Amino acid sequence: MARDVIKRRGGGDASLLRRLNTVAVLRVLHERGPATLTEVAAHAEVSRPTAEDAVGELLGRGLVRESGPPDGPRVVGRPARRFAFNADAGYVLGIDVGAHKLYAVAADLCGEVRAGQRVALDPQAPAPQRVSAMRTALTEVAELAGIDPADVRAIGVGTSGIVDATGRVALSGHLPGWTGLHLPTELAGLCPGAVLVANDSNMAALAEHWCGVAEGAADVVYILAGRRISAGILLGGKVHPGRHGAAGEIGIMRSMGWYDTARLLRDGHAAGEDLVHHLATGIAATVLTVDPELVVVGGGLSQAGEKLIGPLRTRLADLCLYPVPVEASTLADRSVALGAVRLALDEVERELFTA
Amino acid sequence: MARDVIKRRGGGDASLLRRLNTVAVLRVLHERGPATLTEVAAHAEVSRPTAEDAVGELLGRGLVRESGPPDGPRVVGRPARRFAFNADAGYVLGIDVGAHKLYAVAADLCGEVRAGQRVALDPQAPAPQRVSAMRTALTEVAELAGIDPADVRAIGVGTSGIVDATGRVALSGHLPGWTGLHLPTELAGLCPGAVLVANDSNMAALAEHWCGVAEGAADVVYILAGRRISAGILLGGKVHPGRHGAAGEIGIMRSMGWYDTARLLRDGHAAGEDLVHHLATGIAATVLTVDPELVVVGGGLSQAGEKLIGPLRTRLADLCLYPVPVEASTLADRSVALGAVRLALDEVERELFTA
Repeated sequence: MARDVIKRRGGGDASLLRRLNTVAVLRVLHERGPATLTEVAAHAEVSRPTAEDAVGELLGRGLVRESGPPDGPRVVGRPARRFAFNADAGYVLGIDVGAHKLYAVAADLCGEVRAGQRVALDPQAPAPQRVSAMRTALTEVAELAGIDPADVRAIGVGTSGIVDATGRVALSGHLPGWTGLHLPTELAGLCPGAVLVANDSNMAALAEHWCGVAEGAADVVYILAGRRISAGILLGGKVHPGRHGAAGEIGIMRSMGWYDTARLLRDGHAAGEDLVHHLATGIAATVLTVDPELVVVGGGLSQAGEKLIGPLRTRLADLCLYPVPVEASTLADRSVALGAVRLALDEVERELFTA
Repeated sequence: MARDVIKRRGGGDASLLRRLNTVAVLRVLHERGPATLTEVAAHAEVSRPTAEDAVGELLGRGLVRESGPPDGPRVVGRPARRFAFNADAGYVLGIDVGAHKLYAVAADLCGEVRAGQRVALDPQAPAPQRVSAMRTALTEVAELAGIDPADVRAIGVGTSGIVDATGRVALSGHLPGWTGLHLPTELAGLCPGAVLVANDSNMAALAEHWCGVAEGAADVVYILAGRRISAGILLGGKVHPGRHGAAGEIGIMRSMGWYDTARLLRDGHAAGEDLVHHLATGIAATVLTVDPELVVVGGGLSQAGEKLIGPLRTRLADLCLYPVPVEASTLADRSVALGAVRLALDEVERELFTA
């Protein structure tokens, strides 16, 4: 990468250097919060005139705004102007589409949630009806947040089923008509930005890493346990989708007992010994394969809290080589939608921070 | 990274730029083979005088040598001088340490194997005896290859057991006294370079990616199946060791049946239906977890070739969501030692190609 820069600079591409500097300044304001020009120059490692130029350009593009004076003791004399990343320079939407419900979320470019919208669904609803409900929920959540659809820079979707790299649902066992659906096409026209689609457990895992119990953990096994049980895997803080988008699908092995566990849960059984045993078998296989730092249990089952997590931790310690930390999600049923927001933000940041 | 360069260049660090250019030139000669100065300049994206300076410096350091004229039709007039990466600028050693044998390999900096040395071991040999045999084998294989130990830039070790990030054997179920052993300390003084230690299945997986059936596959599950069965996982072409170095240890789950399979194999049973069934269960759990591009079966069992791989492929297709390609290793019992060579070369290349 370093070579690239030198090559292109060698070619006399001053505008590339300018773009690199602007991106560096934007990144500093995005990561560090409000700052003076002097602070920006220091952290972006550019000269003060360069920082001033870049901030001027970013103010013009609406990506940066002037910020108020800092908290703390008043300083004598006129305080230096301060600038901040403009969280309202655009928005993203995230949506969780499952069998029984949709949950849509609108957030600003700093990831602050502005509105949420929950819709109950008939699990037997045919695909066009489900897609139509998604479009409505996404439109309504933007309205609820007072967001112009033209300002939506990306939409993230977390869906049950296996999703290929293009956003097509390659396989869905329980959403009628869902297999084969190319969701970016189905959701086209809602906003000028991209529609990104991923598996729901993967999105929930991403949310835990972003703002849940897995903050700071790079390698995470996430178990979405409710009416169905599925797993998502983060490696190095990033979703590991696998070749077909099917990583974490250990639950399809009947010997893992996840089908039976999910049936017990659907029938209203509480977290008993059998349930822990079955759940632990599949989790152990996953843990022994990837040796993660942390296991997170989310979905409806996680509401049992320590009543479930305690025995599960003990059982896993028996089955695995090393006792693995196990935590219950604290994001409740918002995790998939929040992960979808994160997916959308990642795309927007990739665009913003590429020179 | 790009920012870094600009920052440091901005600071007027001409010597860094010089080092970057030298590294770029060395990398071109290492990757592309012999080349003229004009070719070097073009591929390294530097000026011809810069290429000439860099080649001069590298000739002085012994990392580059003058190369003969290319094959092909003679050109009228004096041919341009050609230069090549000097594969003899240093050497690496790799060693596979198991219960019943050691296998040591010496290779040049292009990874060309110069000598191999096999030593039978008593599986009950205490650790000091095994370490002493390793030291002897490493010394002898260097001698056999005509290599001065002072020119050995790194030693790679593939050992059975779980190896932590420092090179300590955190857990070894079957090498007496092996648990707790810090192999870089045990092998100190053999050469001026580093001693790098990793799990044997991981090293075998690395070898398959480097020069075996997994060339070109980024995500690979490797099964080392012989007197014991273990798994190694490559993600993005790199070993995924896991938090404790224990990734791929699915075999410790008794329900996977790998213990029983290994016992059958030790007792001399051929690859029958039961064996395929047990082997496939554990592999399926791993495949369903990471969704790899390829499964490679190595170790003694792989000598059964298609007689084993055919039925295994069929059984895995039944158990998994997607039929996964399965290949038998063609590296025979050299895979772990070759992976250890690759591990050592990676370390040397990291040093050579860092400005």
